[in-house]
Amino acid sequence: MHVLIIGAAGMVGRKLTSALLEAGGIGGAPIEKLTLADVVAPNSPDTTIPCDTLAADLSAPGTAGRLVADRPDLIFHLAAIVSGEAEADFDKGYAINLDGTRFLLEAIRQEGTKEPYCPRLVFTSSIAVFGEPLPAAIPDDMAHTPLTSYGTQKAICELLLADYSRRGFVNGIGIRLPTIVVRPGKPNKAASGFFSGIIREPLNGMEAVLPVDESVRHWFASPRAAIGFLRHAATLDTTPLGQRRTLTMPGLSATIAEEIAALERFGGTAATGLIRREPDETIARIVAGWPQNFDARRALELGFAAETSFDDIVRAHIEDEMGGMTARA
Amino acid sequence: MHVLIIGAAGMVGRKLTSALLEAGGIGGAPIEKLTLADVVAPNSPDTTIPCDTLAADLSAPGTAGRLVADRPDLIFHLAAIVSGEAEADFDKGYAINLDGTRFLLEAIRQEGTKEPYCPRLVFTSSIAVFGEPLPAAIPDDMAHTPLTSYGTQKAICELLLADYSRRGFVNGIGIRLPTIVVRPGKPNKAASGFFSGIIREPLNGMEAVLPVDESVRHWFASPRAAIGFLRHAATLDTTPLGQRRTLTMPGLSATIAEEIAALERFGGTAATGLIRREPDETIARIVAGWPQNFDARRALELGFAAETSFDDIVRAHIEDEMGGMTARA
Repeated sequence: MHVLIIGAAGMVGRKLTSALLEAGGIGGAPIEKLTLADVVAPNSPDTTIPCDTLAADLSAPGTAGRLVADRPDLIFHLAAIVSGEAEADFDKGYAINLDGTRFLLEAIRQEGTKEPYCPRLVFTSSIAVFGEPLPAAIPDDMAHTPLTSYGTQKAICELLLADYSRRGFVNGIGIRLPTIVVRPGKPNKAASGFFSGIIREPLNGMEAVLPVDESVRHWFASPRAAIGFLRHAATLDTTPLGQRRTLTMPGLSATIAEEIAALERFGGTAATGLIRREPDETIARIVAGWPQNFDARRALELGFAAETSFDDIVRAHIEDEMGGMTARA
Repeated sequence: MHVLIIGAAGMVGRKLTSALLEAGGIGGAPIEKLTLADVVAPNSPDTTIPCDTLAADLSAPGTAGRLVADRPDLIFHLAAIVSGEAEADFDKGYAINLDGTRFLLEAIRQEGTKEPYCPRLVFTSSIAVFGEPLPAAIPDDMAHTPLTSYGTQKAICELLLADYSRRGFVNGIGIRLPTIVVRPGKPNKAASGFFSGIIREPLNGMEAVLPVDESVRHWFASPRAAIGFLRHAATLDTTPLGQRRTLTMPGLSATIAEEIAALERFGGTAATGLIRREPDETIARIVAGWPQNFDARRALELGFAAETSFDDIVRAHIEDEMGGMTARA
């Protein structure tokens, strides 16, 4: 099987690449070729599986056609510019997040006019498709009223994915990821960055800033769970999806207080003492508009699984990113 | 005030034009100029108000820019290719129903970069944005799972309208029309045509075919109500809409049996005797997938009003299309 990952250089893309190469196959089929694309060429992984890496701007006409010209069987489309950038640069957001995805769908359809072709396409959407007014737990049949251009672009792509799948041009499945914690690597400037920072930095003996109240509730899954979602989406029977081709992934609804309590169980007060409370009204206001909880029933019924406690999320981070050891241990 | 109607040559466009010219203004502001555009140039109305008519293909790059170059204050965007054609011709449907609307929004935004410009844009969406699984009465916060490319294109345009409005590029409002009965004119080949035909033809002493069972329930409003929706949407304070810029219009949920009973009250058994039952499984299957009832609470609270009985719908047809007289009278 030939697998194409678009957006392979990002955190999720790199972890997915490693997981696929380690497994050597997916759904019982060996991976015979892997193509890794991103706006800057991803690093070549150390593998015996034939692997192409290439720089590709999906928003440029023709790029998508070149990516699907050798008819990959399975395509992961993870590429997007993030919420803040899509809000700051209206044209760029629509060009990459909407037009890029539409070019990809259209290239797949055009490829299918030459001879039958209907690859599996796994698309990462976002809980940003949901806006106000929000119930306490967002059900699967909640209308999409995004509050950002990014959320709008993702919601539109979900509709396109469903229509192209209904018409038989592609076998598409979309997954709406929870906020991924603990993100490995350095702190970044995303408004959501502190959710990871207050675990990651203290476990490394470093200070981290908490800009919101501990009562803030949010929706989480680990990077490990995210890779599990993608792999399951790649092999799942899509027939039961009907016209609802995108699923809210399961996750953990937890407060910051619960997150800190989990940190203490792994890192003690030496770790929790490194959290510096520095209220930031701007971040607090942004975070207040975010969903806090979902009833992700459809995805659970279809076999998607996430962590059910913050201890599991912290443990996954320690095992996957810290060699199983914390600074304290 | 300068008013632009895109899609002015269609049934709704012509009725809207007449209503606006008769009133001479809208929301207390006189109409100083009217521009009527459609893919074929609309007929020039008999009026003293300055009125341009022009042929314009909104899906052609540059057309939208020319339409908004003289900065209309109020734009009605009614143009679309219908459901059956959008399903039969995938490219044409996306070109006109999606790209055309996006070109219009983008042209308005670009016009606003020259000097501030934020016109009211009234967009006609469709209940085709709703698909399965459907509850008995579809609420305002129901997710969009369209079962056709047409419904997909309308749902995408709703999202774009909301995002462009949120960003302050346009003051947009979308309205999802019920099935309009009684459509004036000749029978057409739309799957929904019989809903109008079984009133219109018998009242004119002509036979009409009923291809489905009398127990079929559907969602209706008169052409008169539709024009009322458009005029109200043009002047309504959009502040309370928040990010939910498109509203399901109120309508009447009624069965074919109720429709025929109303016909009998106006045309007697002479009229109902002209209905020929000729079951058509294809049409029955299509109609079975259509929504039957809505809880259009938001629109009702915002002052939109429709008929509450089929008698009112038949009466509107007789008054507006038959000079108040039926064949029997």
